[in-house]
Amino acid sequence: MVQGADTRRFRIAMAQLNTTVGDFEGNLQKMLEAVERAKVAGVDLLTFPELAVCGYPPEDLLFKSRFIAENRRYLQKLVEASAGITIVAGFADANDGIYNAAAVIHDGGLADIYHKIFLPNYGVFDENRYFRPGDSCPVYIIAGVGVGVTICEDIWYKGGPASVQAHAGAEVIVNISASPYHFGKGNTREEMIATRARDNTAIFAYNNLVGGQDELVFDGGSLVLDEKGRLLARGKQFEEDMILADLDVAAVAQARRREPGRQKGAASQKDPPWPVTRATLSEKPFNTEKPSISPRKVKTRSLPAEIYDALVLGTGDYITKNGFKKVLIGLSGGVDSSLVAAIAVDALGKSNVVGVAMPSRYSSEESLSDAELLAKNLGIRLLNIPIERVFQAYHDTLAEAFKETKPDITEENIQARIRGNILMALSNKFGWLVLTTGNKSEMATGYTTLYGDMAGGFAVIKDVPKTMVYELARYRNELAESDLIPSSVIDKPPSAELRPEQKDSDTLPPYELLDPVLKAYVEEDKSVEQIIATGVDEEVVRRAARLVDGSEYKRRQAPPGVKITTRAFGRDRRLPITNRYKGR
Amino acid sequence: MVQGADTRRFRIAMAQLNTTVGDFEGNLQKMLEAVERAKVAGVDLLTFPELAVCGYPPEDLLFKSRFIAENRRYLQKLVEASAGITIVAGFADANDGIYNAAAVIHDGGLADIYHKIFLPNYGVFDENRYFRPGDSCPVYIIAGVGVGVTICEDIWYKGGPASVQAHAGAEVIVNISASPYHFGKGNTREEMIATRARDNTAIFAYNNLVGGQDELVFDGGSLVLDEKGRLLARGKQFEEDMILADLDVAAVAQARRREPGRQKGAASQKDPPWPVTRATLSEKPFNTEKPSISPRKVKTRSLPAEIYDALVLGTGDYITKNGFKKVLIGLSGGVDSSLVAAIAVDALGKSNVVGVAMPSRYSSEESLSDAELLAKNLGIRLLNIPIERVFQAYHDTLAEAFKETKPDITEENIQARIRGNILMALSNKFGWLVLTTGNKSEMATGYTTLYGDMAGGFAVIKDVPKTMVYELARYRNELAESDLIPSSVIDKPPSAELRPEQKDSDTLPPYELLDPVLKAYVEEDKSVEQIIATGVDEEVVRRAARLVDGSEYKRRQAPPGVKITTRAFGRDRRLPITNRYKGR
Repeated sequence: MVQGADTRRFRIAMAQLNTTVGDFEGNLQKMLEAVERAKVAGVDLLTFPELAVCGYPPEDLLFKSRFIAENRRYLQKLVEASAGITIVAGFADANDGIYNAAAVIHDGGLADIYHKIFLPNYGVFDENRYFRPGDSCPVYIIAGVGVGVTICEDIWYKGGPASVQAHAGAEVIVNISASPYHFGKGNTREEMIATRARDNTAIFAYNNLVGGQDELVFDGGSLVLDEKGRLLARGKQFEEDMILADLDVAAVAQARRREPGRQKGAASQKDPPWPVTRATLSEKPFNTEKPSISPRKVKTRSLPAEIYDALVLGTGDYITKNGFKKVLIGLSGGVDSSLVAAIAVDALGKSNVVGVAMPSRYSSEESLSDAELLAKNLGIRLLNIPIERVFQAYHDTLAEAFKETKPDITEENIQARIRGNILMALSNKFGWLVLTTGNKSEMATGYTTLYGDMAGGFAVIKDVPKTMVYELARYRNELAESDLIPSSVIDKPPSAELRPEQKDSDTLPPYELLDPVLKAYVEEDKSVEQIIATGVDEEVVRRAARLVDGSEYKRRQAPPGVKITTRAFGRDRRLPITNRYKGR
Repeated sequence: MVQGADTRRFRIAMAQLNTTVGDFEGNLQKMLEAVERAKVAGVDLLTFPELAVCGYPPEDLLFKSRFIAENRRYLQKLVEASAGITIVAGFADANDGIYNAAAVIHDGGLADIYHKIFLPNYGVFDENRYFRPGDSCPVYIIAGVGVGVTICEDIWYKGGPASVQAHAGAEVIVNISASPYHFGKGNTREEMIATRARDNTAIFAYNNLVGGQDELVFDGGSLVLDEKGRLLARGKQFEEDMILADLDVAAVAQARRREPGRQKGAASQKDPPWPVTRATLSEKPFNTEKPSISPRKVKTRSLPAEIYDALVLGTGDYITKNGFKKVLIGLSGGVDSSLVAAIAVDALGKSNVVGVAMPSRYSSEESLSDAELLAKNLGIRLLNIPIERVFQAYHDTLAEAFKETKPDITEENIQARIRGNILMALSNKFGWLVLTTGNKSEMATGYTTLYGDMAGGFAVIKDVPKTMVYELARYRNELAESDLIPSSVIDKPPSAELRPEQKDSDTLPPYELLDPVLKAYVEEDKSVEQIIATGVDEEVVRRAARLVDGSEYKRRQAPPGVKITTRAFGRDRRLPITNRYKGR
């Protein structure tokens, strides 16, 4: 393949796009812009994320034959714009079944189609529901360089398709991906790819998706690592980006020549699990004169910064991709609603966020003044709609039915539901989306009112444990270099203020004790006994588990929210409501 | 295997149990009772449904190692009770992975474990998420008869494990199953099994689960078909049952001797996809003296009867398995809430059903009198809680925020949400579960108020199209031989009564037009163009599709309800909320 001294360099561009499910026209426009930029940069290969044409994950839209047909039609438009360039783009292919596919497009034609081989079917993923696995491992010669194309999960396991391709002569492994965020995942991903690069002596170019889609946030952070696992380029996190890099392919060939057991060019595994196919697209680059580039390595950041940005992107995308402009938030003067308001302002701008204070007879004076101060700090409009009159009307209306009963949680829930109804009325009247403010500790234990504080379109911090809510509030203040979220909000003991002198700690264990237990029980499937064995108070653990188990029916009716942990409530954790398992 | 004249008969008992997920003790007690009955009946083999030990489907409980361990511990208790009998029972096995398994238990010992080979991962099923597939096809000699054990999906495809077993000498194929109901499925199942029996010249004994589990109802109707596909026994539908049958195994052997190409005993496929294992448990029956039995063939019934019973069982099981006794239903005087009340009374008894009339300024006099007449006919208590005072209070409270706006759907939703709040207050105060009354046509089009009429624990008829609601109401009246549901309720035009003179037909196409469109669009994934091509008015189709697409966010927050169609909203249909696909 290579004559004389090997000086091959390969210029790659990865378009880290924010696609939208079903938005064929919008997604195509973004791709066409990237094609123009890539042509100007003289790249040898331009890549797009997994299922970029139709958006990811399309879920049961894939069962609509018209959806698949539209996606093919828009792929064809991309093909038609590909004169003078090579492109790898994700789309949904269909012939004898549906495939999660990568189109290999070269100079105005569709050269080949690769089918994803490893289909994730765990956690939030249901790919076996839709896709058939591919069964062959292509290696393409592009501008004289051996390139292997893979999709997401394909590179997550040792000995997978990338290894087969590398052994069959691929010097660059391209991976188009849609890998959802949870905190810490960036590191895991980078280490995994570095290992894969070293194991296979190949350059890995990993093109991730970016953007929010219902409960998922794709965090971008696309990567290029060389054959020694060293970072060459890292894209922005939580933003669209175009990652450009010149790959020293000659160095790969040289490193491989030094490896015992590998025969240059003809090297191959014995009986690879998937047959290798080979296709030569071009022996020479389209462009020999290339403008100089310097690849960027966007720095990784602190955990709260990363999580905060995930929440901002996930919330903003949910709102705008669903056609809303403004949001409405019930401001209690507590830390949860204050954090949600800050996130909303960062996502949409202050003019698109409206706060509503809804004081009752049990609200403290500080609650209203804190809400007012927060609104002032954020620069948002604040409505004040007291709920007393409605609460009294419910009281009177139910007096006959409730005679001979005592006040209990019923009256607390009525107040929460009046607030929910007022927010929904404002939402209906003005077309603003209601953001709910419950955190993960509350969602886990059911310390929340169905149709009350749970009422709304998007639950911004439903996957954020209470202790992390405080961390994020402090982070946001550090960023602002001020008490954007008033210190009185952060410092006061948490309370739902639904009865006199109520504190969360009347009902729940302290959050510093509770949150680690919830993590172990919910995210790690630890049993009550296993958690107690780590030294946590038995009563705390049993109570937490009982509350989690008994609140499944509430969570099933909750609005979606951004997944930021390894296991969010929602499609990530599928428990029956009807469930007598008490062994826990 | 057989000496002299073959006169073998094989007595089988299938315990069609109503198990509960996670109720190890309760499930075991039911199984032990069945073991005692089967011993008295002198059966050669007793079978239990799929995952009978832990209940089906356990979903993510399977990821808890303690859950798996408990299920093994309870299986062992069943083994210990098995002296003098052979049993096949479903449980969750785990070693190098989790398996959907059948324990083959013989005379006090665990003889073998079969692993389900075909794992359904479509519709409501997620079995790839949990289970690894089995890889071998055992044939057991039980009382001198060749028996193949399979689990549910294993027999749904030609050439599957049952075929391999039949070719390897199995004369009786046992299938332990948990096959969820949708209307018409009984026939499909019976035809499929008859085909399988004829194709393999084998007797098929199909043991289905019965009972409700969240959105699913398992309908029982266990079957025994002979080697010619003729019905020998059919169990009750929607009830627990013990199906006993004497199988003429000699006739199977005789029929096979007449088949060209099949060599008795040594017959086998060339290279079966799963290796065959053989084990002899017993050459002779435990019992030679057997009390005589006559197998029952429970008759199949009309469609409305079957659907009605599915709703009664699904609703009753959800309520009682979740520890509730009483339910609460908002009675509007309309046909939906009337049908739900009738179903609730049939499921729980009239003393456990409370109706609540919540008239407003827009309610007609007939609405209240119809609700009263219905309550009288059903013999249930009726509360009357007018919402006017609360509605006025909301009006006053929101006056400032709503100044310079006109009344619109906001005020309609406020009324619906007041009713939701009142029902939830009664639920909180008295511990009664709220049943919601929305039908599938409303759920599909979003003609329903989130946190209003959608508020409640269980949505009884959420999968029943409006036109079928009428059919079911008429069916129930025929059964009662009276106007149990008042004829005025059935005859009046449907209205939400949330504004003066409102009718459903102001907003929606007539249900006779709408329902077939919804079925094509929602259940059959037909595109708008395909539906229009069948001759339906274009505007009706486009409007219906638009409403369905725009209501996904509402459905995501709906309570569960009984699946009775081929595709219910819920886990059966997984569409993104964020979705710009407009091609439809």
